[in-house]
Order: sequence, then structure tokens, then C-alpha cells
Amino acid sequence: MSPATDTLEAEVPAGQKINVHTRAGDRSATGGDPVPGMAADPRAGQSPIDDASLRGYPPIAPETPGFEVAAMRRFLDGEQAAIKNRVRALLCRPEFRYYEGTDKEGLRDKVFGWAKTIANEGIGGLFMPKSVGGQDNLAQFMAAFETLGFHDISLVIKFGVQFGLWGGSVLRLGTDYHHQKYLPGTATMALPGCFAMTEISHGSNVRDIETTAVYDPATQTFDLHSPTFTAGKNYIGNAGRDGKVATVFAQLRTGGELQGVHAFVVPIRDEEGRPLPGVRLEDNGQKLGMNGVDNGRIWFDHVRVPRAEMLDKYAQVAPDGTYTSSIKNPAARFFTTLGTLVAGRISVGHSGLSIAKAGLAIAVRYAARRRQFGPAEGQPENILLDYPAHQRRLMPLLANAYALDAAFKHLTKTALTTDAAEFRQVETTAAALKAFSTWNTTHTLQTGREACGGEGYLAINRFAALKADSDIFTTFEGDNTVLMQLVAKNLLTDYAATFKGKSKGDLARWALGQKLALAADRNPFGGALRGDLLDAHTQRALFQRREERILAAAGAKVRALTAGGRMTAYAAFMSQQNVLLTLAFVHIERLVHARFDDAIRACPDASLRPSLARLRDLFALFHLEKGRAWFLESGLLSAARSRELTRQVDRLCAEARREAVSLVDAFGVPPECLAAPIALD
Amino acid sequence: MSPATDTLEAEVPAGQKINVHTRAGDRSATGGDPVPGMAADPRAGQSPIDDASLRGYPPIAPETPGFEVAAMRRFLDGEQAAIKNRVRALLCRPEFRYYEGTDKEGLRDKVFGWAKTIANEGIGGLFMPKSVGGQDNLAQFMAAFETLGFHDISLVIKFGVQFGLWGGSVLRLGTDYHHQKYLPGTATMALPGCFAMTEISHGSNVRDIETTAVYDPATQTFDLHSPTFTAGKNYIGNAGRDGKVATVFAQLRTGGELQGVHAFVVPIRDEEGRPLPGVRLEDNGQKLGMNGVDNGRIWFDHVRVPRAEMLDKYAQVAPDGTYTSSIKNPAARFFTTLGTLVAGRISVGHSGLSIAKAGLAIAVRYAARRRQFGPAEGQPENILLDYPAHQRRLMPLLANAYALDAAFKHLTKTALTTDAAEFRQVETTAAALKAFSTWNTTHTLQTGREACGGEGYLAINRFAALKADSDIFTTFEGDNTVLMQLVAKNLLTDYAATFKGKSKGDLARWALGQKLALAADRNPFGGALRGDLLDAHTQRALFQRREERILAAAGAKVRALTAGGRMTAYAAFMSQQNVLLTLAFVHIERLVHARFDDAIRACPDASLRPSLARLRDLFALFHLEKGRAWFLESGLLSAARSRELTRQVDRLCAEARREAVSLVDAFGVPPECLAAPIALD
Repeated sequence: MSPATDTLEAEVPAGQKINVHTRAGDRSATGGDPVPGMAADPRAGQSPIDDASLRGYPPIAPETPGFEVAAMRRFLDGEQAAIKNRVRALLCRPEFRYYEGTDKEGLRDKVFGWAKTIANEGIGGLFMPKSVGGQDNLAQFMAAFETLGFHDISLVIKFGVQFGLWGGSVLRLGTDYHHQKYLPGTATMALPGCFAMTEISHGSNVRDIETTAVYDPATQTFDLHSPTFTAGKNYIGNAGRDGKVATVFAQLRTGGELQGVHAFVVPIRDEEGRPLPGVRLEDNGQKLGMNGVDNGRIWFDHVRVPRAEMLDKYAQVAPDGTYTSSIKNPAARFFTTLGTLVAGRISVGHSGLSIAKAGLAIAVRYAARRRQFGPAEGQPENILLDYPAHQRRLMPLLANAYALDAAFKHLTKTALTTDAAEFRQVETTAAALKAFSTWNTTHTLQTGREACGGEGYLAINRFAALKADSDIFTTFEGDNTVLMQLVAKNLLTDYAATFKGKSKGDLARWALGQKLALAADRNPFGGALRGDLLDAHTQRALFQRREERILAAAGAKVRALTAGGRMTAYAAFMSQQNVLLTLAFVHIERLVHARFDDAIRACPDASLRPSLARLRDLFALFHLEKGRAWFLESGLLSAARSRELTRQVDRLCAEARREAVSLVDAFGVPPECLAAPIALD
Repeated sequence: MSPATDTLEAEVPAGQKINVHTRAGDRSATGGDPVPGMAADPRAGQSPIDDASLRGYPPIAPETPGFEVAAMRRFLDGEQAAIKNRVRALLCRPEFRYYEGTDKEGLRDKVFGWAKTIANEGIGGLFMPKSVGGQDNLAQFMAAFETLGFHDISLVIKFGVQFGLWGGSVLRLGTDYHHQKYLPGTATMALPGCFAMTEISHGSNVRDIETTAVYDPATQTFDLHSPTFTAGKNYIGNAGRDGKVATVFAQLRTGGELQGVHAFVVPIRDEEGRPLPGVRLEDNGQKLGMNGVDNGRIWFDHVRVPRAEMLDKYAQVAPDGTYTSSIKNPAARFFTTLGTLVAGRISVGHSGLSIAKAGLAIAVRYAARRRQFGPAEGQPENILLDYPAHQRRLMPLLANAYALDAAFKHLTKTALTTDAAEFRQVETTAAALKAFSTWNTTHTLQTGREACGGEGYLAINRFAALKADSDIFTTFEGDNTVLMQLVAKNLLTDYAATFKGKSKGDLARWALGQKLALAADRNPFGGALRGDLLDAHTQRALFQRREERILAAAGAKVRALTAGGRMTAYAAFMSQQNVLLTLAFVHIERLVHARFDDAIRACPDASLRPSLARLRDLFALFHLEKGRAWFLESGLLSAARSRELTRQVDRLCAEARREAVSLVDAFGVPPECLAAPIALD
């Protein structure tokens, strides 16, 4: 090319010209096209910078993990491997390639099509009764839903709205009449439905929603009405565009009496998608993420709903307006109605974990190939994953993912087989696990994005969508902070119940036991708390004892505050809110650790156990280290032992690093879903 | 409306039809339009749900703050109030209304137009020398840049690329020839420029970039070349579309000798925006955020750069190829070249703080009006900001914002007036403050989004853009983790220097002093560390002593590891990486607290001091509480005193809550910039 230079006249607004030197020369020799499509360039290969084959990233150094990746994946997939693999195969089809546009409507079209495809593979109907052509297999449905979390998150939620929320509410709150009428159309997505619970003024506090349903015996209809602007249903998935029908939660009034929140099936759009009379619909518009789901608002202006369309499994209104319910206590009835949310919470938490796994897989695989800075000139630079700080960022998150997976698998089983008495425990755990898991997802994706530096910021490397789309997981299906308060409240109530009806002698014996336990805690020479930090029993004892002591202290405090009516229970709880949130956290950390440890003990493949046990140790010591101030304040850990936690976490991170890529590969996120060029072989 | 119901035939793919009940009736009576534009509905006012006047949020309860908001704003605006208010006024013009589309090119057009408008108001030229028509006022320029952080973040960075990076590199590394030639066009944005330092393979490690510039005396040109694909310049702002010229960093070779990284001015596009011969340009494509900035990649294929176009303030190449430099040490020369980044780091950190302020203003104002859950039926629900947990989420972030503001103001002044000897201190502080501030921004926005629940997820309420656009702040202008290592390294080097040349006697006296200090630390009956936690001196002593002890321990460890050549310094640093990061954190926490305290003492308006002192206490105790495990491990805090930290933070949060809205209003984010409906009056 010509080395001669010339001048370039750049435009300036005032009409003056400024000179900038440039090169005259043969443009055809080396001049580039403005932007993309380098690979398609006919001159590719002419110079290193034109050689498309150089565009790949350096290979990921092979590992010699202490386990077989396929075996670890079998362990993680567990009993539901078949359906998980079916969903994975579906998601690898070319039509599931991610939407690359930025247009909301285009994405919505794409997502609706995807959801329909999956539904029509029979996956939407998995949980439905056989009477409507379903498989009556909620476990399979939940495993399928969890696996969708490896793909587009709008799809996950579009699917969740249609099946988990709309379909699930019809199934659980309705009777055969509703099942036959609505579920077949739901299964094929011919009948897109909404779950209209949240209102503009009431999200977390569902009990105070404003929408009313007043029964009129003359016409045998309910008069469904939004009395105020803020009574409008809000953020309702499928309401923005596609929904034809909705389960609407409203305050039921019949015979002049308020009966609390009940659910009604109400059509909202006609065949052509126009709002039906009395129904006002509004699109929630552009969101931070998940724009493939058409969230919207709904108001009702005295819409008449036939008596039969009340979902009447737990409560019925007779033609004359007489109200009956098999659940006598109104509060219990309300919580049974909300009980439909529990499966949703588990599913949201578990699919949130799938998202974290995908993000971790990208960050770990990139960190295993990217080099930056090195020991000396001429020597190769270091792999990011060899930096202790990088290990500290990513390895505890890997442990979290494995531990949470075990906890969700156990909870799902319990939720499916539980009887009414155990339901409260399931509800507590579902709330805590949903919050813990979705916060972990947000944290994992943020850490992963930052760990991938500038590459992590390019949309093509997926963190953009993963982060934006999953950000709402900490809010929907129960705001995490509100859920954690629910957890603490349940724990305190159960704790208080253990004292109920106890004799004075029993209570004295209990108090003595407490004193002995406290004394044992202080014994520096032995006991479960002084064992090897790498022994799961010691770990369990530390988690357990912390929860017991914080629970006992919180219980005593609330009792003292409310004694003699000095404070209402509400005021007492409110004043102790920060302590209660701590209680909820230590509870769920204890539980996740225990479930993970149980799963490792039950693992039939002994070859996996050492690696799993290392992750359990990392989970335990990382969370204990994070909370070590409390242990030091309480005298349950000495300063030396506290420092030992830090040393062990560093060491465990370095060990986990050696099989990190294998550990993320075992998640079984299909490369087609991972999609990020920085992560692919 | 008619209560009669009818059937709606919904389409199902197999051609079957399913029946869904619906209402026949007079659509015109109450039927709604499908989505937006409710306010424009001619029937508005007919029913509460149609009344646009109800769409507002409840008013924010008035506060009785202990200060005048206007006075606090004057304190925050400081000496640069005039330019800050000028920029605010500009940003309130109608043409600065945010872009509502999702199209990248549309946003780029908008942002370019905004940047040009601001530049042509003379703001771009503020920092330029008077010889080219500038104002020679970097302080004003930096204050203007900080204020832009209240508006669109793409604009901030588009502006920063053009002026801070491209313009700044010409100004600092070039001589009058370059200033006269490039700066006038730069000031008007007639000549959009790039700062081409980062490469695909080398982001943080600039020293090892691959691009070469080989001097050829025969033609008196440099042969600028990208020898490999990975030598391509990456993420370069203005390179994707608008840039006409670039400061390119390359390894200089002349007379057969490598001279390290130097900078050259190179045109990259012709008048019509086509890449010039030998220049290959590629758009970085869709990013997680900041899509109004056209980041791109650049490769050079033996592009000839005239000798005069080397930015030769610190190093020159004579026509015959002789290399000269006023800075003899190559490492020092390299760091002087990188020194151009320091002002950018300060500006990025400070504008990142503006972003955090905007997010906080939205979250706090919304929390002061939103109610959810209440003491009992019939009583009003509680305001979110009255929940202790909500206070704990937001109030420490408010304290961070105030404290960081003081630290940035001080650093900016030092950076502008410093001599060469002080430059290292400025560099260290700029690195630490940039990292601390941008991490704080990410955390503040995440917390703010979650604190606003579903409303926080709607694009109209701004967290979508704020979060996405600012996410890269923790990575660019120096990856935060890398910067924090730089900080620790500088601290250790300075620490080691204090021992250099010391006599045996001096060292013995030093060792004795250390022993006495340690003994004093353990004295439970007095000393600075045992003072009132609400006394700034006690706070300073705690921060100070922690940093000293961690620094001394890290120094001793590195010395021990490297003694007798057992380990290279590199290996020793690497093995201690996590401790070094802790050191950097405790250093910057100490410094920010001290700067904030200094600013409060120097505050001429005594009426502001009590509120500011409360925020200083909150800053101090919140960060000390967060790090209390170390204090417990080291015996610098007793368990009782550690628990006292928690109690005081709770109390300070509750106190700060009482003037929280006033405190965010004092930031002076114009409502036009805030824009979020949930936050506006």
C-alpha cells in the first residue's frame, strides 16, 4: 500500500474545514468494509487479521477431574434424567436459536412460538389430570420447567404463566367442570391464560387486594369490579397481548358478607384479541428484561361472571348465595388459596438455579482459557482461573449451585408427597429456598459478568439477557425480603408452639437443657462444635447451633416485647425485622447444607463422593466464614478457628478449581443454549 | 352493560374449537382499547379506572429535616456549583428527553446529537488550552462530566471518549502541533476520535499489547500493524461508527530496538465514514447496555503513520530514527503514558457516583410513598421506608454516596494541583476510589431496583437503563479487581520504602514501636480504639489501625516468601492475592471516611453538620460492622462492642430515614433526568 499521506476534510458545523492527514492509496488492496461479516469477506485469509479461523478463543486446558462428567451429570439429573434430556434435545433444535433483535413484539412472537412448540410436544400437559389427556405427573413437569431455565428466560416465564400459574390455578382451585372446560385448550396454548392476582397497590400483601366480586342471586353471576385505579391487576403475564382468559383473584361478597379472596375464571379478550366489554387492558410496556413476556394491567368495570366460573374446590357459592367451605378458618382458607403459589415458588427458584448454572458455565469456561498478566516477559501469561482472587469469586458459587440443586430436588419430592400437616414446612422451605436461590442467581450472574470483563458485556456472550431477564426473580412469586420474613415468622410460630401446653416442670427442664447447651458451647475442649471443620458433622453442628441460638434469642425478645400487651405482635415483629431476616438466612443455609450432605451420603456412585464432599465443605466453610462474626461474638468460634475458616476456603477453592470446568460441564447445559462464543469449544 | 354471556371460539391449531364463555353486549359502553394511551381515551373520567388523574402515586409525606435542602445542595455542589447548574439546565431542555426506542442506531444518533449539543455549548473545550480556544479549566470539565452522570449514561461515555480519552490523550501526550491540529475539531465534535489502547488479548495488561509501530527513516513514517487477530483494538468507543481518527497505542520499534508502548494519531475513516486503506473496522454489536456508544474493533495492516503524528511530549523519534525521552526509566515512561488514564478513572468513578445518586433518589422517594402491609385491618398500611429492613437496605448507601462525594472532590483537587512526586499517591487513590465507587454503584442500583419491586423492573422507572448502562463501569478504565491489586502493590511498595536505608537502630526502634502499638491495642481500659463509637476520632483510629496491621502483616508475609529468592515477587504477590485485595479495601474505606470527616469539619455551614456527622457515623459503623470479624479476630473489638456496632447502625439508619428524602433531593438530580414516574411529585 501507498505510504503517501493526504488530507481528509472533516465537516464542521460552522462551515469551516479542518485538515486531518490521511493516506491516499489503493483502497482495494486492504481497505475494509464497514463492520460485521468479516468471515464472509472474500479476502479472508489474506492477512492474519482477515483469517476467520483465528477468531476462536484458545482451547480450554484439559482437566483430570476426580470423576466422570457423564456420571456427575447423571447424579444431578437424578430420577428425571429422561424428561430433562427430552427438553434439552428440543432446545437444541435450530428453531430455538435465540432471537437477536431488540424489538419487543418480535421477541414476543418468537417466545410464543417456542412455548407452543414445547406445549405441543406434550410437555405442557404433563401435570394435568389424565381425564383431560394429561400425564398427572407434576414431578416431570417441574423437571422440564427447571431445564427450560438453560434457555431463554422469557420462554421459561411464558411457559410458567400459561401452565404453572393459569393452568395450575384451574387445576388446584377448580373442579372437574373447570378442568374439562379449560385445561385441554391450555395444554395446546390455544387458550392463553393469565393469573391475575397482583394489583397496582397490592403485590406482596394479597390479602388486601381491592378487586371485588359481589354475588347477585337474581342473575346467578358475580359482579367483578375494580373500584379504583390502583385495584388494577398489574404485571400480569399474558395480559399485555396474548391472554384470552384469566384466573382473577377478588374479594368475594355474598349475602352481604365479605368472604375474603377467591378466584374466578374470566375471559378478557375475544377471538380477534380485542378486550371484551368491561375489561380494560394495558401493556406494561418495555421492561428491564423478559420482554418476550407480555405483562399487562387489567381493570374490570362491573363484569358479570357466571356462578359456575368461580374456582370452587375449597369454597362454594350456592345459587341463592349461601357460602360454604370445607375450610372453616378464613385465614387457613386464604393460605390454601395462596398455596397454589408454592409449586410456582419452587419452580421459579429451581429454574433460577438453572440460569445461575448457565452463567457459571460461561464464566468458568472462559476463565479456564483467558490469560492476562504473567510472571515475566517471554513466559506465557496466567490463566484467570489460576488467580486465587478469581477462584474466590467463582468457586463458592459452584458449591452453591451444587448444594442448592440437592435442596431443590429434596423439596420438590416433599412438596409432591406431602400431606396437609407437612404443608407448612414445605411452604417455609419453598419461601426460603426461592429467596436464597434467586438472590444467588443475581449474585452469580453479576460476578460472572464481571469475571468475563468486557467480553461479558457483549450481548453475544449472554450475560446481558441472563442478567436482565432473571433480575425480576428476586421479586416475583413473592418478594424475597417478604418471603424471608414469612420464613422467620413460621419458625418463630413453630418454636412458640413447642412451649404450648407444657407443664412448669417441662419448661424448667427445657430451661436447664438450654443452660447446659450454652455451657457445652463454651467448652473449648470438645463437643460437636470443636470438631474438624472438614467433618460434615461439625459443619452441621455449627449451622444448627447458630440457628437454635438466634431463634431462641429472637423468640425471647418477641415474647418480652409483647408481654402484657406492651406491644402488638405486629409491632414486635417489625421492631425485630433485621434479626428475623438473619434468622431466615441462617435457617436456609443450615437446611441447604444438610440436604446437600444427605444427597452425598445417598449418592450411589462412590466415585463422585470426594468431589461432592469438597463442594459441601466449600459451601459450609464459605457460608460459615461469611457469618463468622456472629460465631466470634457468641464464643462458638475462637479467633484461631475463625482464621482457619478463611484458610480452608482458600484451599478448597484452589482444589475445586482443578475440576471446575468438569463441574460446570456436568450441569449439562447444551452448547446450543450456552451459545456464548467465549464459552464454547 | 349486559350481564348475558355468550361463547367465544378460540382457535386451536388442529382445527377443533373450544368454547369459552364470554359476555355479549354493547362494546361501546365500556369496552377498552387494546393497550396504551389510557389518558388519551375520550371516555376518561367515566369510571375510576378511566380517570387519568388517579394515575399518580400518593404524595411523599413531608419531612422536617435538620437542614435546608438548598444549603445541603450547595455543600455538595461545592466550588463548581455554577458549571453543574449550567449542565443541569442543559439536560432539562426538551431535546434531552430520553430515547424510548430499542434500536441501537436510533439511540446512537440521539446520543451523538446530545453530545454535539453539549460540546457546542463550550463544555467540550473547557479543559483545552486557551491556545486552541479552550478554557484551560479541567476542574470545570470534570464537574460537568460528573453532572452528566444524572442523565443518559451512553451520553456520559460518548462524551468521555471524545473529550476525556481522545481529546485528553492528544492534550497530555501530544505537543502544540497536535493540539492545534486536532483539538479545535475535537471540541465541536466535527472530528470524532477514539482512544485505541485495549486489544482483544490485552485489556488490563497494556504493557503486552501486540500492535507494532516500526519506524522507517527512509519514508519518515511508522509502519503501524496488527500482527495477529488478537492484536485488534477492542471495545474502542467511537470506532464502531462515528470515529474519524484515533490515538493508537503500539509497541514502538526504532533503530532495531523496542521502546515500549507509545501513542500515535491515526485517521481511520474518510469523510464518508468508510474505513481508510489498511484499516479494518468492526462494530462490537449489541451490548448489555450503553448501546448509544458505538464500540468497535480496529485492525491495522501496515498503515503508514507520518513521524509527526507520534504523540511526542515524553518521547521523540528523530528523522533518522534516534529515540530520545525525558523519562529515562522505561517503566516510568510506560506509567507516564498510562497516566492519561488517571483523570479518566476519577471521572468515571465520580460520574458513576452520580448514577448511584440518581438510583438512590428514585428508590428513596418511592419508598417514602409506597405502602404495603399494615398493623391491622382498617388501619393504613406502613410506608416501606418505615420498615427497619428497608432502612438497612437504603440508608447505608445514602451514607456511601455522601462520603464518596467528599472523597472525589478532594481527589480531583489533588489530581489537578499535584506535582510529580505526589502523582503516585493520586494514582493509588484514583484506582481505589474508582473501584470502590463503581462497585458501590452496581450494588446501589441492584438494591434500588429490588427495593422498588415490580415497579423497579419497568423500563419507564429507569433502573433498566441505569443498571445496564453502568454495569461496565466496574470493568472499563481499569478492571476493579486489577485496580485493587495495583492499590495493594503501591501500598506495599511504599511501606517497604520506609525501611530502605534505615539503620539497625532505626529498625529496632521501629520494631519496638510496633510491639508497643500491639500492646496498646490490647489494652481494654483506654486508648483511641476504645473511645465512643460515635466519635470520629475513634472511628478513624479503628480504620487506621486495621489498615496498618493488615499492611504490616502482608508486608511481612511477602518479605518472608521472597527471602533468599525462595519465591519471585510475582509469585509471592499472587499467593497473597486475597489478602492484598482486603488490604486495598480497608485502605479505601479508611480514606473515604477520613475525607468525609475532613469535609464535614471544613463545612462552613454549621446547620448541615449534625446531619452530615450522622451520615459519617453511619458510613463508619456500617463498614466497621461489615468487617467486624477481623476486629474480633484481632482483639481490637470485644464481642459486646461488636454487637454495639450493629445496634448503632440500626439506630443511625432509623435516624437517617427521617430526612432521607431531603438527603436525596439535595443531590440535585433534575426531575427531568430522574424521569421515573414512581419518584416524581
